[in-house]
Amino acid sequence: MPLITLTTDFGLADHYVAAMKAVILRHCPDAAIVDISHLVPPQDILAGSFLLERAVYAFEPATIHVAVVDPGVGTDRPLIAVNIRDRLILCPDNGLPTWAWRRWGPGGVAEIVWRPQSSSDTFHGRDVLAPVAARVAAGEPLDSFTRPTDHLLLLPIAPAKNLKDARVIHIDAYGNAITNVPAELAGAVVGLVRTYADVPVGQQLKLINSSGLLEIAIRDGSAAKRLKIKVGQAIKLK
Amino acid sequence: MPLITLTTDFGLADHYVAAMKAVILRHCPDAAIVDISHLVPPQDILAGSFLLERAVYAFEPATIHVAVVDPGVGTDRPLIAVNIRDRLILCPDNGLPTWAWRRWGPGGVAEIVWRPQSSSDTFHGRDVLAPVAARVAAGEPLDSFTRPTDHLLLLPIAPAKNLKDARVIHIDAYGNAITNVPAELAGAVVGLVRTYADVPVGQQLKLINSSGLLEIAIRDGSAAKRLKIKVGQAIKLK
Amino acid sequence: MPLITLTTDFGLADHYVAAMKAVILRHCPDAAIVDISHLVPPQDILAGSFLLERAVYAFEPATIHVAVVDPGVGTDRPLIAVNIRDRLILCPDNGLPTWAWRRWGPGGVAEIVWRPQSSSDTFHGRDVLAPVAARVAAGEPLDSFTRPTDHLLLLPIAPAKNLKDARVIHIDAYGNAITNVPAELAGAVVGLVRTYADVPVGQQLKLINSSGLLEIAIRDGSAAKRLKIKVGQAIKLK
Repeated sequence: MPLITLTTDFGLADHYVAAMKAVILRHCPDAAIVDISHLVPPQDILAGSFLLERAVYAFEPATIHVAVVDPGVGTDRPLIAVNIRDRLILCPDNGLPTWAWRRWGPGGVAEIVWRPQSSSDTFHGRDVLAPVAARVAAGEPLDSFTRPTDHLLLLPIAPAKNLKDARVIHIDAYGNAITNVPAELAGAVVGLVRTYADVPVGQQLKLINSSGLLEIAIRDGSAAKRLKIKVGQAIKLK
Repeated sequence: MPLITLTTDFGLADHYVAAMKAVILRHCPDAAIVDISHLVPPQDILAGSFLLERAVYAFEPATIHVAVVDPGVGTDRPLIAVNIRDRLILCPDNGLPTWAWRRWGPGGVAEIVWRPQSSSDTFHGRDVLAPVAARVAAGEPLDSFTRPTDHLLLLPIAPAKNLKDARVIHIDAYGNAITNVPAELAGAVVGLVRTYADVPVGQQLKLINSSGLLEIAIRDGSAAKRLKIKVGQAIKLK
Repeated sequence: MPLITLTTDFGLADHYVAAMKAVILRHCPDAAIVDISHLVPPQDILAGSFLLERAVYAFEPATIHVAVVDPGVGTDRPLIAVNIRDRLILCPDNGLPTWAWRRWGPGGVAEIVWRPQSSSDTFHGRDVLAPVAARVAAGEPLDSFTRPTDHLLLLPIAPAKNLKDARVIHIDAYGNAITNVPAELAGAVVGLVRTYADVPVGQQLKLINSSGLLEIAIRDGSAAKRLKIKVGQAIKLK
């Protein structure tokens, strides 16, 4: 069964997500569609990039991941198809694939040049990315929609190579501050615990989380609020 | 594969949406169910009507659209089945089909008179609409559940016939103010741009949006908040 | 088609729900997955227990219900499989099955002892419960993952046996206060109405709700806010 995931900043109140699903099911009626998140903060490409990497990591090869955080919709910013370890990402060329590319890539890039006969200027997720995703899921070759390109916009984030580079790259809904420090580096950090319940309620802790990254948390509380941590902030570790 | 969509004001915290899906899957195990929105503001029939039209527009003929914004549940307000261009709407007779009817209708109406052997008085979405939707999706004829009726409650909204009738009919989660002015009329409006990025960040703009309607927006901001726009408000256009 | 439901406190902003779905679809590609709620208040086991009971009630036998509200993740708290009337619950042994057990049980309990070759210490929903649910859904016998146990942690809540025991056990998103008084007992309560519209807007009412429980509501308003009702509060009834 073809599998397509969706990561957007559309929110859940409006019809925008369903509009994309309608197009996907029209072109590929047996597709299974999985929502990663539609609560990416509006136009927050870095947050979208973090969640998209989690989708790329979680799902099997051949899954198609559509990501739409697209402040430049309707301009000449390209739409791209990125292949990382046989997972396909379809998205605007604005940095969304960065975190997946830096953790599991590099991969291949192509520009999506196919356009429908009529398209809105404000919703390429529905009018371009959804039909391409569905038709590729249904068996059409990707290269009938794309042309080769060397261009790939990448954000200035990367997994830390040593502890001096540690930064917060994501804050989740619990208020946990997730860093760019991968497990193999985080093992050397002083004061690491194994799980949240290893410290008393309300106490700060550091652990390697389920994404394989160093995380700063407060047991049963929000580290982001209590410690006033923001995305991008450098973290001092020993 | 039979397709059923759901538009409700149930919210996402409770089990109410899943209760409807359980009934649908019991009667039609191979149905694909697509959520349009469950965040219609409580009992806001106009907002539900706008989103329902987007569902009717987006999905293929034979799709069954169930809409539940139902302040009159348990009273003698009828439940109805509305056919617009071979899409079927099942909902209370309280105005929910209005916007779809006015944009793509008129169509046909029938009253749903079938009732289960035992039913709650507070959840006809689960107890009446869901089983009827699923059984029709599974192949039973609609008219085994309905009787003819002439009655259809319609809200006092309609696509504008000239610019003097322009009103805001919906505010989306970004704060964009969507009007009742269709594209063919909006083309004459002074100062129209093509997409959000055609103006600087923070500036007000007007465009024809992905619903084919004139929209008032602020680039990367909320027009509803900044301009204090409310649903129903008249809009002056040149 | 195998059916798996999910009830968690993960929220909808992050990738955690999708991470569980990825694992389920890897092991059981034709599973239908239904979200009950992911907005259980963080670590609120009682709220999770209430919603889980509604899932157990709504879905057919053989459905597998996975519930993850798990403040003790990574500690030695067991994971369990609970069978109630041929519906299977998979969850931490922290009280989550209580309300289903007290309304429809007792049933059978087993401890899930299977563990994957590598597992995080913070996300057993993804690493243990999801693969077990999917593999059982795909046909593997449950007892290849479990061993017998007598232990089942139950919360101190139960359906009221007489009106003196009436308590609020859940507040839904509308602000309706749902009590532990079942319909057969509630029938004797003075002042019961049949549906919300039986009283004027803004007025308080009591009815037997769609869960078969006595509910205190305000028509088109929030009883929880207006009457300052909290979960656990005793209710005086005549």
